[in-house]
Formats: sequence, structure tokens, C-alpha cells
Amino acid sequence: MELADARIRIDYANTLGFIDTSAMESAHQRIINAQQLLASRSGPGADFLGWVDLPSQARTDLSPILEAAARIRAQADVLIVVGIGGSYLGARAVIEALRPPFAAEGPAVIYAGHHIDGAYLRSLMDSCGDHRVCINVISKSGTTTEPALAFRVLRQWMEQRYGREEAARRTYATTDAQRGALRRVADEEGYTTFVIPDDVGGRFSVITPVGLLPIAAAGIDIGAFLDGAIAMRGIAAGTNPDSNPVLRYAMLRDALYRQGKHIEVLASFHPELTVVSEWWKQLFGESEGKDGKGIFPAAVTNTTDLHSMGQYIQDGERRLFETFLFAERSADDIVVPEVAGDTDGLNYLAGSGFAEVNANALRGTALAHLDGGVPNATILLPGINAASIGALLYFFESTVALCGYALGVNPFDQPGVEAYKSNMFALLGKPGNEARRSELLAQISRDGNAVAG
Amino acid sequence: MELADARIRIDYANTLGFIDTSAMESAHQRIINAQQLLASRSGPGADFLGWVDLPSQARTDLSPILEAAARIRAQADVLIVVGIGGSYLGARAVIEALRPPFAAEGPAVIYAGHHIDGAYLRSLMDSCGDHRVCINVISKSGTTTEPALAFRVLRQWMEQRYGREEAARRTYATTDAQRGALRRVADEEGYTTFVIPDDVGGRFSVITPVGLLPIAAAGIDIGAFLDGAIAMRGIAAGTNPDSNPVLRYAMLRDALYRQGKHIEVLASFHPELTVVSEWWKQLFGESEGKDGKGIFPAAVTNTTDLHSMGQYIQDGERRLFETFLFAERSADDIVVPEVAGDTDGLNYLAGSGFAEVNANALRGTALAHLDGGVPNATILLPGINAASIGALLYFFESTVALCGYALGVNPFDQPGVEAYKSNMFALLGKPGNEARRSELLAQISRDGNAVAG
Repeated sequence: MELADARIRIDYANTLGFIDTSAMESAHQRIINAQQLLASRSGPGADFLGWVDLPSQARTDLSPILEAAARIRAQADVLIVVGIGGSYLGARAVIEALRPPFAAEGPAVIYAGHHIDGAYLRSLMDSCGDHRVCINVISKSGTTTEPALAFRVLRQWMEQRYGREEAARRTYATTDAQRGALRRVADEEGYTTFVIPDDVGGRFSVITPVGLLPIAAAGIDIGAFLDGAIAMRGIAAGTNPDSNPVLRYAMLRDALYRQGKHIEVLASFHPELTVVSEWWKQLFGESEGKDGKGIFPAAVTNTTDLHSMGQYIQDGERRLFETFLFAERSADDIVVPEVAGDTDGLNYLAGSGFAEVNANALRGTALAHLDGGVPNATILLPGINAASIGALLYFFESTVALCGYALGVNPFDQPGVEAYKSNMFALLGKPGNEARRSELLAQISRDGNAVAG
Repeated sequence: MELADARIRIDYANTLGFIDTSAMESAHQRIINAQQLLASRSGPGADFLGWVDLPSQARTDLSPILEAAARIRAQADVLIVVGIGGSYLGARAVIEALRPPFAAEGPAVIYAGHHIDGAYLRSLMDSCGDHRVCINVISKSGTTTEPALAFRVLRQWMEQRYGREEAARRTYATTDAQRGALRRVADEEGYTTFVIPDDVGGRFSVITPVGLLPIAAAGIDIGAFLDGAIAMRGIAAGTNPDSNPVLRYAMLRDALYRQGKHIEVLASFHPELTVVSEWWKQLFGESEGKDGKGIFPAAVTNTTDLHSMGQYIQDGERRLFETFLFAERSADDIVVPEVAGDTDGLNYLAGSGFAEVNANALRGTALAHLDGGVPNATILLPGINAASIGALLYFFESTVALCGYALGVNPFDQPGVEAYKSNMFALLGKPGNEARRSELLAQISRDGNAVAG
């Protein structure tokens, strides 16, 4: 299948001076090998390749999700989505990319359970006032601390507000098919449930009900979103880097990293893509950042951050490369008005659209940063709509799989996420962690006198 | 003056294994030298040291700002703050730190002119509906592209909405005392105006009316905010790093950078401090990132990002150090409720406050990242209130001045911010830039065929 909105391109002219032919050729070889490893499902993490074929699988029957989404839209002024990490960022990235930033139609979507902040949760509940509320709680196990704690509080609050039965009708659980704490509660209470597949990791789960249910409830066309991802699935299978932007982006990243460019700055020129960049940071940081390796992913939103991180990128240490993200068509544009007297000297722009000014900000920035010694490429989106965002997310998922394999890591695990949790459980006195608790407390008290102020 | 809320401390036990005595001693010497250079006003950028004594100067007469803020609160349901960079981040950082995230009292504060996005501006105006609106436009020159374009659109909209005279009564301009495009318009139209001093750079301007007016209009006690900064001014003058956390933080940064820790991750454990981290990125990135030098500043918000960047920080390349930001007391806490049957296994936390769980997440994370090879220090705030935030911002300003001098750069200029602007002006056809325009277009067309996809 082919779809104009999925035709993502990458302009890499401003990297050519940094990568010679032989470096590009070895990167090409490594990425092609990685592509074969992925296709043959013989690389590390092969049990977590469910994401590869998800778009077309999900597309076959959207009706349960669409029905639940329609019910939420009828039931609620506010949808509280409870989840963290991959159970949080995907839906939020897509919703904020595609809804108007102010005064969207349909339920407001608010996030909870993505940190441990009591004042936030209190303010959230207070603000609901007389609004009608639904909850979508998302957790594979149901025991992840942050969403589980928030759900304890919100469930109690919903049951006080609506009574137990009506609260259950307003609660949607996305969880394991059979096992786990949330599955048990959901079955007992009779929540509407959706399944998180076993072979899809959290950061790849936006195309499962984890992402699709809140996205659909926000009024976004998930059919078009999936069509974009399906089209990109076709493109990503190509073996020619001139027509497959996944291969090209993966090659650039691989080659630049091996030349000492250890930081990638994803620089979008669209504020509505700020959470897409956050999602990208999780996807790339968690997939590559292991075994003492990996590009450090950072993000800026321009032109805002040209007045912030712009100075560093232009003139600081030369250990970074930049990936711009730009949409070539922009909806609902505003034209610069003429001002009598031209006080601010901007009448030369009168009649231009904001999008045109923004496009020239991108072009000017790319050349300025090139002059400053920063290799940079530009990912060109055909627009910002459900299909192009579906294509973009799948584009990034496909790229990181190849880059992780080329780097020699398992791009589908995240062993390092457990370390803080096990310390935290021990410090909190979770039964069974007594020995570790004593060790940690001893360490803290031994080092505890190095405090200034 | 002394103030409990300003007593910021820094726990650096988890850096000691990475900095030997002699490295700490040379860092100490460099930072003490920098402190003397700053005090004697004999270092580079000495014309921009106005920020040093701003807190006490601003404190002497707050009445014009308080009166304007009270008028805005009476006039408006929505205050649109138009500015970019230093004319944007400071106010937003303080307001988001101190207001409840949902349903705050007093006018909603919305930001504009901090990027070039027509759809955003359109959505903003559409969402105002029947709400009463005021504007605070902030620009030293009045010709910075982003705020000037937004103000063109918003001024026209306000004049259509209210008529020219009433629109002028609802417009507050913070700008140069005498010169510049915005000063001229403000005087012609009779806007209420406030002055941006000549000797204060944008990223240090939060303690001028640039920050203070919107902060006061949001209902925050700017007297207490300044008292916190004044107290930190006193603390920062001390010469003993055991009692002056500014010296200690500056020494750690200096020593770690020289050992190849090129990235600093500021990791707050409070979502309401997310924009404080953005402000910090501008302050540190713009002050240090020049002449091919400088620590790359990145930020995460925990525990959210422990489920995202946490993997990289735990296990990725070991070129980074981490600075946690944690408030020891937390307002309006929520207690974990007991759940019958303990389905999620968290009853061992029942009766604990969220703040206590969060504190143990911090302790667990700090030790886990130490085990992973990441030196880390923790900035301990006594709480999150107007005084402690005033102290914190002044703490960071004082630190970056010392670190910049120790690094051998001018911490008060930002020459690299101009590069993209001059390219953009040329590409947009600004009169007088014809030669540069031809050069850039030639470069673009020469390289334009390296596009994949």
C-alpha cells in the first residue's frame, strides 16, 4: 500500500562533509546486516518483535476500540489516562500532535500515574468539579508503583463519586490477557478491558490498545494513523537507502556515532511535536543505551529553543549531531499582517504565512549549525495528520531496531530500568528485601556527611 | 538576611569516588578565582552584571509591579505573555512551579511569540471566546522575529475585540527604557510599560519586570520570591564550600567536566519543576556553550523519565553526571490508601505519604546510578514555595557565572544565537541581505540532491 502522507523523506546534504565514502559504505553494510537480522527474527530480543506487524494486525478489527472510544466520548468531559513510560508517552505524543493545543473538541485528556506527586493528583481531582470523568488505566502487570498508587487513589475517588458499579462502567483497563493484578481487579469489577500483547515492549506499544484507545477517545482517526504505519512498514522493507529513509537515517546515525558524535539532538520546528520528541527519547535511549554504549538522545523544540540551547548547539563542544523534524505543509496558517509605519521593521514579511517564515528559520538554522560544525539531517514530514504521525512513529521504531543491532545491543530489552526500582522497594520496606535494605541504609549513613549548605 | 526557605543544600557524597583530593583542590582554586573575578567585576562580560544586585534593588519598590498585576487580575481571565528565550522561560518556570497544575485561581497565563506556529496562535485566539484578555509583551528591542510577529497578530485581534483605546489599557509592555520599536509603539498607544535594564542579559532577567510582572499577575508573592534570592545572594558570597552550596556545586561541575563528564542531566523529582529545568538549560547552555567548550545540559523529570531516559543513564555511555533536584517538604500530600485483598501488593505502603515514596525513589535512584558509574549530587530545596524558588534561581545564576569564568569563557554573552537569525533574515528576503541570500541559495541548490525517501 502507498499513501502520500506516509512519504517521509530525509535530507542529509548537511552530513556529507562529515562522513566519507568508506565510512558510509561500512555503515551501509552494518545496517543492511541488521535489516536481515530483523527480517529473519534471529537477532537478540526476537521474542519482542510483535511491533513489526502490529499496524496491519490492528487494522483488521478496530471496532472494539472504536466502540469503547465512542462510549468514553459520550460518558466523559475528562478522560484520565493512568500509565507510565511506554504506557503513557505514545498516546500523549499522538494526541498532542494532532489536537489543537487549546479548546479541543471532545473530552480533555489528562495524564496521571506517571510520577509520584501527591499535589498534582490532588489538583487534578479538585479540578474535575462537576465534570464527568472516565479512567483508562494501563499496566501490563498492575503492580508498577506509579500507576498502581495513582489508581488506588483514583479508584477510591471514582467509587465515592459514582458508586462502585457506575465507577466500573467508567473505568477501562488495558492490561495482560490473563495474568496480573490489574487483570484480576478488572475482571472482578467488570471493567471494559483491552489486551497488551506479550511480544510488544512498552516503548513499541503505541499501536496496541495502550495507545489506540486514548487516541481514539480523543477523536483522532486511528484508521488513518494505522494506514500511515502500514505504508511505512512497506517502505521500511526496501533495501535501497535512496528510497528507504529508514535505512538512510540508520546509516547516518551509525556513521556519526562511530566518529565521536555521541549526542543526537532531535530538533522539531513544531511545538505540537514536543511529546513526539519525548517519545523518541524513550524509544532511542532505552533501546540503545546499554552495555556502556549508545547515542545520548536530547530534544529541542524550535524556534523556541534556538533562544536557549541554540547557543550551545552553534558554538559548544562538537560532540553532537542534529536531526531536524519539519512538516512541509501546515494546517490553518496565519498570514503576517501589514503594520502602518512598519515600527518593528517586519513589513517585508507582510502577506507571508507563518509556515513560510518557519520554513526559512529551519533552512537558516540548518546552514548556521553546519557552519558551526554540526552535521545535520532533516526528516521531512508531508504534513501533521493522523497518517503522517503513524508513519513517523513506525519510521522511528524501524530505525532504532536497525541501529541497535548495528551497535551490537539488544534493542528490545531495558534491564537498567530495574535498578532504581529494586533499591526503592528495599528502602520502602517491601517485605522480602530486608537484607538489601540494610545494605543501602548502611551505605547512605556511611556517606551521609558530604553535604554543603 | 537569613531565611529558612533559602537554605538550599547540596549532598555530594555520590561524587566523591570520582574526584580525588587534588582534582577537588584545583577545582576549588579555579572557582575561588572566579568568585573573586566576579566580585571585582573585572572578568569578561562585566557590563552584564546587573543581575548580581537585582534582588535587593527590585525589592525596594515593588508597588508599580504590584499595582499593574492587581489591575491585570481585575481585567483579565486570560493573560497572554508574549516573549521568547529569557523573556519567556523565567516567568513560566516560576509560575508553573508555584501554581497548582490544574484549576489555578486568577487569570490563566498562556504563552505566545515563543515560536512561529500559526496553528498554535489561531487555537489560542479561538479558545479565548468570551474570556477577558490582557497581553504582556516582552522584548528589549521590539524587533525579535517571533514575539514581534505574534504581537502583530495579537494586537490587531485585541483592537478588533476591544477597540484601540481599551486594547491599549489591556496591553502591558516590558521593554527598553527609551529606544526600540516596542518602546515607540508603547508610548504612542499609551501602554503601561516596565523597563528591562541594559546591564542584565535575557537569561538573567527573571528578577526584572520581565519575570516579576507575569509572576505577580499569576498571584505569586514576588516579595517572598525576592527575599529568597536576597538570602541566596548572601549565602553565595561566602568563601567556604562547606557552607556555600554555590561554590560546592560549581566545584563539582568543574571537576567532573575536566574528567570527561561532558553531559549534565538535571533530574528533578517534581513535575512542577519541569520548566525550571528548561530555564536551567538555557542558563547553563547559553552561558557555557561557546568556544567549542561547555557541559551539554539535559533534563529529566522523575520518576516519569526513569521509565524513559532511566535506562540510558543507568547503563549507557559513561560520559555524564547527574544533578538531582529534590524538595524536602511537599505541600498538600496524599496518603496511600489500603486496599482490601492487596491485589497490587502495595499495602505495605498504606498510610505512607506520596512524598515519602517519592523520597525513597530519589534515594534508590541515586544509589542505583552511582552503582552504574554515574557521579551524582542532590540539590535539596527546603520546599517548593516563592522564597525557595527565588533562592534556587539565584543559586543557579551564581553557579553558572563561576563555572563560566573557570572554563575561560564569557558567561554573559551569546554570540551563537545570531547565526541562524542572519541566515533566516537573508532567506526571507530582508532588505539589505541580498548578497548573503544569493550565497545561501547557491549552497542549498548545490547540496539539494541528497534526499532519501
